[in-house]
Amino acid sequence: MKTALVYLLMTSMSAIAAPVAIVIHGGAGNEQRPPAAEEKQRHATLERALRAGHELLLRGGSAIDAVEAAIVVLEDSPLFNAGKGAVFTSEGKNELDASIMEGRTRGAGAVGNVTTVKNPIRAARAVMERSPHVLLVGRGAEEFARRNGIEIVAPDYFRTEERWRELQEWKAKQTPGKPQSANPAAQEHLGTVGCVALDQNGTLAAGTSTGGMTGKQPGRLGDSPLIGAGTYADNRACGISCTGHGEFFIRNVVAFDIAARMRYQNQPLADAARVVVQEVLRPAGGRGGIIGIDREANIVVEFNTAAMARGSIDRHGKLSTATLGR
Amino acid sequence: MKTALVYLLMTSMSAIAAPVAIVIHGGAGNEQRPPAAEEKQRHATLERALRAGHELLLRGGSAIDAVEAAIVVLEDSPLFNAGKGAVFTSEGKNELDASIMEGRTRGAGAVGNVTTVKNPIRAARAVMERSPHVLLVGRGAEEFARRNGIEIVAPDYFRTEERWRELQEWKAKQTPGKPQSANPAAQEHLGTVGCVALDQNGTLAAGTSTGGMTGKQPGRLGDSPLIGAGTYADNRACGISCTGHGEFFIRNVVAFDIAARMRYQNQPLADAARVVVQEVLRPAGGRGGIIGIDREANIVVEFNTAAMARGSIDRHGKLSTATLGR
Repeated sequence: MKTALVYLLMTSMSAIAAPVAIVIHGGAGNEQRPPAAEEKQRHATLERALRAGHELLLRGGSAIDAVEAAIVVLEDSPLFNAGKGAVFTSEGKNELDASIMEGRTRGAGAVGNVTTVKNPIRAARAVMERSPHVLLVGRGAEEFARRNGIEIVAPDYFRTEERWRELQEWKAKQTPGKPQSANPAAQEHLGTVGCVALDQNGTLAAGTSTGGMTGKQPGRLGDSPLIGAGTYADNRACGISCTGHGEFFIRNVVAFDIAARMRYQNQPLADAARVVVQEVLRPAGGRGGIIGIDREANIVVEFNTAAMARGSIDRHGKLSTATLGR
Repeated sequence: MKTALVYLLMTSMSAIAAPVAIVIHGGAGNEQRPPAAEEKQRHATLERALRAGHELLLRGGSAIDAVEAAIVVLEDSPLFNAGKGAVFTSEGKNELDASIMEGRTRGAGAVGNVTTVKNPIRAARAVMERSPHVLLVGRGAEEFARRNGIEIVAPDYFRTEERWRELQEWKAKQTPGKPQSANPAAQEHLGTVGCVALDQNGTLAAGTSTGGMTGKQPGRLGDSPLIGAGTYADNRACGISCTGHGEFFIRNVVAFDIAARMRYQNQPLADAARVVVQEVLRPAGGRGGIIGIDREANIVVEFNTAAMARGSIDRHGKLSTATLGR
């Protein structure tokens, strides 16, 4: 009886002492109310991704496992701009980027410009765990993924008619003779995906995966595969995943900057995120948003676009998803 | 007479109010005393690079022009691991990376994995000034450089017998059947190059260029092409260029972290640099060093390796070069 009571006490205490939490995003952009059927699908997919990660966390799984599991669901869905359903480059290809980071060891891995890796987030994790490197790009990254048993697909696996049509619309707007450039401000739906999770050991992890911008120049890397810019995790501060106009996120080293403000200025996560997204990025024209979790399991979602697809399951198990504005 | 006096006063005041300064590095690594003739050449090349940048600064040129001019000298020299004389990948190729950033606008540009661009720092600058992007890699970066009139060379332009011999030595040390990996700790001479400059307008700029590590996996990017990791410039804090074991510099977002400690903790440049290089990187096993200048023209060189090739011309015009330890 006494043993049972002690056990009960211990498990309740452990539930209090070691909360888990997960937050995901499916990109920031203009407010855009899709047909009701698609809207329903987007909510359902966000929920499925959250549950995939959260169930692992509840079973004592690691934050990095949860981040990978949630992002794989979003990569496999054609509704988001990552994995299947990625946007096209100006040359009509899908070039995918992803990164992942673990906040205890601050180990990190990333791939850029891959065209045949079904789930770039898995390749990013393999770079972290099975190579001495952090970032591999192009053919070298694909060779590495193949050698490490990551699923390889034909480049046309990623193609969806919706994204192809978006490329044709983008092309129709280009001025002949002028160098083409992607204009993310004009893009309705950016759709990068990301996840941050906190596990029972108090370890944070973050990951991001994207197809970039419709009409991007071949070989362009945005912030998603760059540690510090699009993704960062540090158990002393927070885990962060970003989405938006990548060049601004690179120049402002957004994910790391939020962690730095927490560590060096003792700002709470919510304040650091608000300052960086609303007071640094917004005035500079850098449109997008971030998700984050701190070591106390506080969740933040902050964006300066009209809409951001996101969802979370907090320390109390409360699930929420949203696809439009606040 | 009065006019002449006022003019004299103004020019002296302007000399006091607007100092210029430049600092360069040629990589950090093990202490290694090369043959006297080569040692003399290394000092001479460092001095030539410094003077190329400093003369532009004295004539009122921009910090970004000075950084580019100094780095081109170092890229063109076979003595350093950037441009001509770059190290070889495990497949026996030269894959080059570079980045540049300007501290007033915080504009930035970078290229990764280029094999035909004679001066990668020029291509990085073109990305900054003539594209909406920050980072282009591989064939896309090369196409962009060619379209923008950057000099293209055959891949064997970069080859030197010394570097080729280093690759053969590296290969001889690999265990057959085991996946190959570059071990930067074992590399005698890393030789990445970089420059930071402060111009008469008080603008800082920083740039870095490298061939990476002997035996690196194809497609590997280190910190050199990554804004925030290997290169950062912010007029509110400092300009920084890094050299060393890139993966550690990426995970610790070294260049931006030094600027963040200055801005958020009011640390002087020298203190922030020392803490990051000696107290963050060194205990983690991250070998290398950094150069930097703050807006008051203070110059810092900090490294945790036995040696670092470096040189500077300070606000008083004092030139110094060194290739070994302290």
